[in-house]
Amino acid sequence: MLSKNQIKLIKSLSLKKNRQQNGLFLVEGIKGISEFLKSDFVLKTLYTTKPIFKADAQLICEISEAELKKITSLKNPNTALAIFEIPEQIKNQTDGLIVVLDDVRDPGNLGTIIRLCDWYGVKNLVCSKNTVDCYNSKVVQATMGSLTRVNIEYLDLEMYLESSKLDVFGTLLEGENIYTANLPKEGIIVLGNEANGISESIKAKINRKISIPQFGVIKDTESLNVANATAIVLSEFKRRTIET
Amino acid sequence: MLSKNQIKLIKSLSLKKNRQQNGLFLVEGIKGISEFLKSDFVLKTLYTTKPIFKADAQLICEISEAELKKITSLKNPNTALAIFEIPEQIKNQTDGLIVVLDDVRDPGNLGTIIRLCDWYGVKNLVCSKNTVDCYNSKVVQATMGSLTRVNIEYLDLEMYLESSKLDVFGTLLEGENIYTANLPKEGIIVLGNEANGISESIKAKINRKISIPQFGVIKDTESLNVANATAIVLSEFKRRTIET
Repeated sequence: MLSKNQIKLIKSLSLKKNRQQNGLFLVEGIKGISEFLKSDFVLKTLYTTKPIFKADAQLICEISEAELKKITSLKNPNTALAIFEIPEQIKNQTDGLIVVLDDVRDPGNLGTIIRLCDWYGVKNLVCSKNTVDCYNSKVVQATMGSLTRVNIEYLDLEMYLESSKLDVFGTLLEGENIYTANLPKEGIIVLGNEANGISESIKAKINRKISIPQFGVIKDTESLNVANATAIVLSEFKRRTIET
Repeated sequence: MLSKNQIKLIKSLSLKKNRQQNGLFLVEGIKGISEFLKSDFVLKTLYTTKPIFKADAQLICEISEAELKKITSLKNPNTALAIFEIPEQIKNQTDGLIVVLDDVRDPGNLGTIIRLCDWYGVKNLVCSKNTVDCYNSKVVQATMGSLTRVNIEYLDLEMYLESSKLDVFGTLLEGENIYTANLPKEGIIVLGNEANGISESIKAKINRKISIPQFGVIKDTESLNVANATAIVLSEFKRRTIET
């Protein structure tokens, strides 16, 4: 049975300020929840219509389909909803390949970028303070569990980039062709906002401008979707690390 | 002034069967409409709150902000909404690089893939009959005008692939590493459905299996988002065409 207070808490976690106040976030669906249960994330409560999860029995609460419908944010809820604790922000490593996001606002884009980092073995993702919250339920949903394998920090980007000793790469129209540029194993890759790209103050910190060349007919300044740009850039950086 | 019949027609075009019956589709916003006006697409009517478009005056209908709000499908409508004619399906070329989609269902994904084809100079996109309609307003919106530069056909994929003389590439887990595989300038690249990947009957037509290797820690069979996979595959094919 779900109490009114439980429903109220779950509903409240759709807002960032409530997630931060409570230190809690939601994960929905069998696959996502299973990934988080296997990780270091700490389960608070698991509401499920079927007893199929391996977790501390005291934290599992069996509910009806009708109850699940009351608490889900999905059109087609999938068996379970879990509350996990937001971990302490882990300090990112200062070496390796690091992705930096300058005000990415779309939850789907952030989720997809987290999946790409996971796929390409990028452990560290640094976001500007105005980048969408990675514990937003749409982000969590889009990451398909990759959130458990990528360290995400929200920092003042200007200060962060100033203090780093790595080369700072950014995709800019006037940049060097990424396919022929020399790309190192370590470095920071900056990606910008969906509408405005990389902000001027952050552009000033980029010392390695790169560009993804267009192969189509000449046209007005168009841009690639930020998640696709991330896919192409990570693909190029990682390709160079393959021994042939 | 908008008549009741005009409003009724515009609203009806949110459904595929009405778009097909009328041979019409909608484009919203200054940027998108401008791109379509510059292309070979034929304008039927342009509703706008500002007289800023270069088009046959007889086809332009000035409306109020309040009227625009009645007909838009957007939360924040941008100045204008236009009705264009759906062109005759242009027969795709049978050479070059061709992208084939096997039941891509998400409008955002199709829109992004059309943009990627445009970016990478891929002129021909062949979709299975169950792939989302490219004149769906969300697809049109996501393409940012690229729809005017890519030929899209909806065909029976099995028959299409059987009749083609080009190599058929598909991203499959057991495929050859795309980064080290020999990739030609011409070929067909098949991408699959968001949840189920490439269907069995289409898999049987693939004679060049390729894979995008994972660089992260070993994990359960995860997959990349179909638009990101398209980005990475097109990037690799086109990179090889650069003279160094």
